[in-house]
Amino acid sequence: MRLRNVKNKEQIMEQSPYLIRDGSLYRGKWKTLFCNENPIYVEIGMGKGQFLIQNALLHPDINYIGIEKYDSVLAKGLLKIPEGIFNLYIVRADALDIDQIFDHEVSLIYLNFSDPWPKNRHHLRRLTSRIFLEKYEQIFCGEKVLEVRTDNSSFYQYSLVSLSTFGYTLEEVSFDLHKDNMPLVTTEYEDKFSSLGLPIYFVRAFKDCKTKEKP
Amino acid sequence: MRLRNVKNKEQIMEQSPYLIRDGSLYRGKWKTLFCNENPIYVEIGMGKGQFLIQNALLHPDINYIGIEKYDSVLAKGLLKIPEGIFNLYIVRADALDIDQIFDHEVSLIYLNFSDPWPKNRHHLRRLTSRIFLEKYEQIFCGEKVLEVRTDNSSFYQYSLVSLSTFGYTLEEVSFDLHKDNMPLVTTEYEDKFSSLGLPIYFVRAFKDCKTKEKP
Repeated sequence: MRLRNVKNKEQIMEQSPYLIRDGSLYRGKWKTLFCNENPIYVEIGMGKGQFLIQNALLHPDINYIGIEKYDSVLAKGLLKIPEGIFNLYIVRADALDIDQIFDHEVSLIYLNFSDPWPKNRHHLRRLTSRIFLEKYEQIFCGEKVLEVRTDNSSFYQYSLVSLSTFGYTLEEVSFDLHKDNMPLVTTEYEDKFSSLGLPIYFVRAFKDCKTKEKP
Repeated sequence: MRLRNVKNKEQIMEQSPYLIRDGSLYRGKWKTLFCNENPIYVEIGMGKGQFLIQNALLHPDINYIGIEKYDSVLAKGLLKIPEGIFNLYIVRADALDIDQIFDHEVSLIYLNFSDPWPKNRHHLRRLTSRIFLEKYEQIFCGEKVLEVRTDNSSFYQYSLVSLSTFGYTLEEVSFDLHKDNMPLVTTEYEDKFSSLGLPIYFVRAFKDCKTKEKP
């Protein structure tokens, strides 16, 4: 991601009711913050937030939390959130600390256009590497569902093998999401790549789902 | 596959020592035919046999069996087999009868450029559908390994989901096999598609492998 500095980002972050600077304060207690028992969906690396905000508006019965480490990006996201949304928070954090923020509370994780870390020696930094999949085990409650969207074929192939090897079942794969099944909600990256005619790769995978047992 | 009639196919089949017309006669007894305990690798839909014959020459410590239902194709394959090969047989059969030919004897199955059966209503005819994966359970001995090569993106995506849902772990996936890892042995189709610059999709998947346990 090309980062453009947002000059008044500190002020934006200060004034927003949607930002949580220290997510670890709510570890194990997120449902009390939302004041309901609705499932919690998390987007790790939420960027400027379009995907998460649109989802929050469309699905008031789901609680959304976006994780973002870059203040300038995060500030742009905060500005986009319409007033009165009650099912969305943004946490300023690095993905590596995700298990310090949640404790078996998350029902679904979105990894949208994550950094592909193309060099082999960096593969453990990819958000679908074993290192992160192990962290996700600590934040998922019961059934585990993970969705990956990317324009990067190598990262996608790596993710398919990594998820499968870790015990996930691939429920849906698409090498051209917008052709196969045009989604209602998209990310900023998705719009950009798709408008250039590039395919969007998608996989939805689950683990430990009692309702979707293997034979 | 475009089928061209081979006029003297009956004569070729009659004279070849490599053809087995009724594979069910050897069900449970293939190792006695090969006179050794080497693993058995099967290609379902072997076409004209290039892949299987080259493999048999390269790996004398593995027994290869090709399954083909079309006499004209099969006859062409028989003509290609060099004299003196001792680790290769060709069985005239339909894939649907595979569990009548083997009984827990096969270590690896190759599905190379199988008919993609593009219409959704035909999906159970695909060689990676649940129907066939259930049959393969009856022919594999212990560890199950399956390799799929195809030029068809839709069939490939279907296969990834079907294999994963059936409990296979994806060990290797490639959306451009000849770029990622140029194989030593290729099929006739592979050569043709590759020469046209089309990518070859590949997946190697395993199930019930004690040496490759999931975490």
